[in-house]
Amino acid sequence: MTSESDSLLLVDNLDGVTTLTLNNPAGRNSLSMAMLQALHDQLVGLADDAATRVVVLAASGKVFCAGHDLKEVQGQLGSTPFMLSLFELCSKVMQQIVNLPKPVIARVDGVATAAGCQLVASCDLAVAGETARFATPGVNIGLFCSTPMVALSRNVSPKHAMEMLLTGEMISAARAEQIGLVNRVVADSELDNAVAQLAGTIAGKSGHTLKIGKQAFYRQLEMPLHEAYAFTSQVMATNLEAEDAEEGICAFLAKRPAKWQDR
Amino acid sequence: MTSESDSLLLVDNLDGVTTLTLNNPAGRNSLSMAMLQALHDQLVGLADDAATRVVVLAASGKVFCAGHDLKEVQGQLGSTPFMLSLFELCSKVMQQIVNLPKPVIARVDGVATAAGCQLVASCDLAVAGETARFATPGVNIGLFCSTPMVALSRNVSPKHAMEMLLTGEMISAARAEQIGLVNRVVADSELDNAVAQLAGTIAGKSGHTLKIGKQAFYRQLEMPLHEAYAFTSQVMATNLEAEDAEEGICAFLAKRPAKWQDR
Amino acid sequence: MTSESDSLLLVDNLDGVTTLTLNNPAGRNSLSMAMLQALHDQLVGLADDAATRVVVLAASGKVFCAGHDLKEVQGQLGSTPFMLSLFELCSKVMQQIVNLPKPVIARVDGVATAAGCQLVASCDLAVAGETARFATPGVNIGLFCSTPMVALSRNVSPKHAMEMLLTGEMISAARAEQIGLVNRVVADSELDNAVAQLAGTIAGKSGHTLKIGKQAFYRQLEMPLHEAYAFTSQVMATNLEAEDAEEGICAFLAKRPAKWQDR
Repeated sequence: MTSESDSLLLVDNLDGVTTLTLNNPAGRNSLSMAMLQALHDQLVGLADDAATRVVVLAASGKVFCAGHDLKEVQGQLGSTPFMLSLFELCSKVMQQIVNLPKPVIARVDGVATAAGCQLVASCDLAVAGETARFATPGVNIGLFCSTPMVALSRNVSPKHAMEMLLTGEMISAARAEQIGLVNRVVADSELDNAVAQLAGTIAGKSGHTLKIGKQAFYRQLEMPLHEAYAFTSQVMATNLEAEDAEEGICAFLAKRPAKWQDR
Repeated sequence: MTSESDSLLLVDNLDGVTTLTLNNPAGRNSLSMAMLQALHDQLVGLADDAATRVVVLAASGKVFCAGHDLKEVQGQLGSTPFMLSLFELCSKVMQQIVNLPKPVIARVDGVATAAGCQLVASCDLAVAGETARFATPGVNIGLFCSTPMVALSRNVSPKHAMEMLLTGEMISAARAEQIGLVNRVVADSELDNAVAQLAGTIAGKSGHTLKIGKQAFYRQLEMPLHEAYAFTSQVMATNLEAEDAEEGICAFLAKRPAKWQDR
Repeated sequence: MTSESDSLLLVDNLDGVTTLTLNNPAGRNSLSMAMLQALHDQLVGLADDAATRVVVLAASGKVFCAGHDLKEVQGQLGSTPFMLSLFELCSKVMQQIVNLPKPVIARVDGVATAAGCQLVASCDLAVAGETARFATPGVNIGLFCSTPMVALSRNVSPKHAMEMLLTGEMISAARAEQIGLVNRVVADSELDNAVAQLAGTIAGKSGHTLKIGKQAFYRQLEMPLHEAYAFTSQVMATNLEAEDAEEGICAFLAKRPAKWQDR
């Protein structure tokens, strides 16, 4: 898979794992309109790409992503329509990650701030190098991280989110793991291995099953308990009509490896 | 209290604490239709049982519960009505635990997987032995743990839930405590003592008060803040009309033990 | 700023930080009707007070707050209208803290129980001394902590909240930090410094920005994801129309300190 955005966003596929790499290290991998559009376009394509079972979101250089491109924003000060379109596109991309029918793993090396921290929070899973750091520092420049906090506050508890949002201060990778913003922290030198292992584990599952499960997860999360159970009972019954479920159950009981149709 | 399901589900009562013990260790205490029906029937009875102030959910052998009975499921592959009735009964039992007007404590010795992990997540409290382990491994057999995740995702943060659901891997008791799936981890040899102490502490409270509180807890959790305060203010005022509240307050101010009417 | 409630509630302002100090140590700083009314009146005033950028909630003596005044409650047993007005006023004050357009930090020295624990949970941030302790012990006196649990269960996970509510037992400051009830625990002798530093950091931000952000935070938290993004995208665009955002962005890009209009 290639794209016109190759310079801004690298796309690589290996064994079912597609890695999207933010590739503007000189610009701190900021989420300019162009970068957001490139992400948007790639995510549209990956949703239906048979060769992609898991997506890894990575970045070139030692800044994972510094959030919006403030020079671009400064150049448009006074244009509310531009700002609205910027935040709407950014919010759309974040929701594309949540709604993508394939798991997305953030590979965080270096600093993830503002909408960059939001990217990490929006992924299903996140693995960070031990020197990674996170912040929602908009408050320091008079622009509260109001869209980033949507994702952040759905990852961590209110007091932890508020501490980041009100102080704008950096937290360490260890603290990010402690509060639930990332799943695992490893030595920087182990980051590639850890991400490859996690992505590989998930890429070995039935893609149909992953799709059913991820979509149901975020839907049921917003329902009252009773409704969530009515919905997921139906999801389970439908899941069992799939060939991969029959194969998986039979393989398990026969103590042999499953052979997924959708893989 | 006895039941026809004695062989599958043991029922024992001591000092206000009723212990339900899943008793099919050879079948990994799986939640077959028969086991779910036995749980359902017992929970219906316990709701109004004056001798039961606290319920402990335990299991025989070193597998707490392995989830659904896959042989039973395999035998019904193709029958969507059977699957729907299975997941609906299972979801009903999980909600019976949540809606039971008495606290329910999971006593987890060994492995709790899939719907077995859901059982633990559905209890109000959980104590685990140090060798206990937890997983939602449905993804490994092509059947995503979509009903278990309803309970799991209401216990732990989204990234922690997603890691268990997407990888299907086991987590340790220590990790389960860290992420909020269980309250306490103790040495396996201390598990009975720890559960007895916790259950005994709670059994010493006014049953009327526990009923009011547990029911209000799960209801307010699903409300917006303003509505939750309007609802619980009314609950508090009504609670104060009860004899046990008057007795409790007077006993506290007189520095004497309270004598509950409902105990 | 002074008030008629000076004896019950001390008010002090220094460099934009207004400290409200519960000042009835002999009465364990309980939330009597009079104390609640004093808090209510001060919070009404602080909402529009130009000299207040951050609020610290503190207490005199070694009990932070013991919850409702049980002698007052005992004297009104049988009067449901009084009870309703008490819990409604208390719920109103807790929501005033959440809705105040300025960050509120709890400074917890000593014991915070029942509605006192609710006060801590209702603040945006909380710093505790290492000997602080927390409990929701209403269950011990037949009066379940049903209003305190509204705030508690929005800070910590359900099993952690239920353990406090069902057992009524004290938890340590370290445990409170672990489960997310407080942000930081410091040596008792460092408590004033830690609170002053945190409050000072936040007081240095644009007040207009803090107001926008805090209000949006709690509103978006109760929305489904899609709605939350639509709402906060608009908030961001509107935030960028403010002079403090323009100044903040220009100052950042010019690598000079920002000069807030609203400070």
